[in-house]
Parts: sequence; structure tokens; C-alpha cells
Amino acid sequence: MTQRIPSIFRTRSRSVIHDGIVTTVAVADTKAPQLYDQARDALAVIERNLVEAGTTKARILTAMIYITDIQQKAEFNRAWDEWADRENPPLRACVGVALEADDLVEIVVTAQA
Amino acid sequence: MTQRIPSIFRTRSRSVIHDGIVTTVAVADTKAPQLYDQARDALAVIERNLVEAGTTKARILTAMIYITDIQQKAEFNRAWDEWADRENPPLRACVGVALEADDLVEIVVTAQA
Amino acid sequence: MTQRIPSIFRTRSRSVIHDGIVTTVAVADTKAPQLYDQARDALAVIERNLVEAGTTKARILTAMIYITDIQQKAEFNRAWDEWADRENPPLRACVGVALEADDLVEIVVTAQA
Repeated sequence: MTQRIPSIFRTRSRSVIHDGIVTTVAVADTKAPQLYDQARDALAVIERNLVEAGTTKARILTAMIYITDIQQKAEFNRAWDEWADRENPPLRACVGVALEADDLVEIVVTAQA
Repeated sequence: MTQRIPSIFRTRSRSVIHDGIVTTVAVADTKAPQLYDQARDALAVIERNLVEAGTTKARILTAMIYITDIQQKAEFNRAWDEWADRENPPLRACVGVALEADDLVEIVVTAQA
Repeated sequence: MTQRIPSIFRTRSRSVIHDGIVTTVAVADTKAPQLYDQARDALAVIERNLVEAGTTKARILTAMIYITDIQQKAEFNRAWDEWADRENPPLRACVGVALEADDLVEIVVTAQA
């Protein structure tokens, strides 16, 4: 069975839970001008989504990080290192892409349900 | 057991089916100059691939959308909103990247088999 | 149960094994100036990671390829075609992104454990 948690968009789910795996996505709620601030915000949204889906950041398996300025990857890493569960480090990749409007970061994670 | 559906490339599968999950990829068959047209086309290819793999778009779990011009994301969204199953909205992320030649969009989805 | 293989970063795993699926990530160990060389190197790291995680490249299901210069995708393809298991071709997508410092390619794969 698949559980889908609605987003503000009728054609997209915020989280999908299937066969023991939660997949969720987040951008920052507030569009702060600094990547570090948006990264903290987006990671907090991820955490909230995971709790809503019945799991926690300690059960994250993989994280794909999309940032608009790869030169500032260290700023993302700073937010990540403060946030990630060191007992259960996720597999992570971080690449530079273009994002919509004022978004500086978008994050997709999978976690054990 | 893993089932692999061949593509035109001997070293890549068009779809892979494993443990109840289909993963498939598509670009537009025809390289129309407008993103909306390529999006419709690529989504149609995704749908065809899913049927070929024994499933349907109603069972899509996640979709990663890669477009070459993030400024035109609304055009992709228009095609997506017309196409997506509103009873079963997928988890989706859409980022701006560079793609080969005349491709304006590339889509990777996972679906329940 | 989830098995996490440590990387040099305390907050990130090199590979994660969960429910029969290995996910692993690699960049080239040596930052050669040519994409073909980095691609061979990164693919060799992927192969090493898979063996370390108890599997092989013949069991790869999906591969996401991130390269910094999409114009040189043919060079990546050359390394891929020499490397990939033709009896078991993975699902693959390849997009152009920005990567850190001298990295020309980053690869994320999933494989049957």
C-alpha cells in the first residue's frame, strides 16, 4: 500500500510512503538571502515532513541536495553538519543546479519508515 | 529477481523492475522547440514505458524532473498538471540542468510495479 | 536493518545498505583534467564501493550521472560503455550540473545487495 501526504499542489505529494520507505522533498519556507539560512530552514522542513510521515532524521538513508551556487557548498555543509545524525549518517550527493525564483536549495531524502 | 527492459543503447536499460519498483527514464521523442510540447511528449513516453513495464502512471511514487530553463518551469507544470493522476499525486522535484543537444526536459520516475 | 559504510565525513556515509538495496556515491579520486579520465576513475570507485558493500556492478539497478560539461557527454559515455555490464544494463540518466572544485563527474548508483 502507498500513502501519499498532500502538498499545497493537487498534482504533487509532499511525501510518499511505500514498502517501508518515505521519500520527501523540501525547499526553505522563508527565502532568506543566505544559503546557510535557507539550508537550516529546508532541513527543518525535511525533519517536520519525516515526523509527519512517522519517521525521523535518524532513519534517513539518502539525501540529494540541489543548490544554486556550488561555490557556497561549504555553507550548506555547515548547516548539514549541525543537523545530521552522526550516529546514522546518510548517503549524500550535492550538485549545483538552477532553482525557481528565490530558492537557493532543494532537498530530496529517502528514509526508513 | 531483476527485470531489465532494453533501450536502444546496449549499456543502458530503458526501465528496470526490481522488488516491486519500476524505475524508468524519458526524454521527448520529438525535439519540439517549446518546453510544454517536449514535456507532454516526454510524459507520454514515461506513460508508455510504465505500461510496457506492467504498471501505470497512477502508481508513480516519485518523479525527478530535469529542465534546461528553470524560468519556464511553469510550462512544465502546465503539462504535468494536465497529465498527473490527481488521485495519486507523485512526490516531485524539478531542477534546472544542462541536457544533451535539443533536449529541454528529462524525467526519471519510480512506480509501484 | 540498515548498514552504513562510513566515509571520510562524519555526517555522510559512503554507502547505505537497506532492505536489499545498496546506494553508493563517488567522484574521481584523482582530479584529472579530462572527463574521460575522471569518469573511469569515478566508475572504479563505484565498483570498489559496491564490492565493499557486498555486491558488484552486474547488480546495479540505476545510475544518476552528474557531469559539469554536457557537451562532453560522449566522453562520459565512452568510459561508461567500456565499464558497464552489458548483460545487466542499468537504468541511467546523465545531466549537466555544477560540481565542487575540480570535480568533473559525480555518480550515484543503486544496486541489488
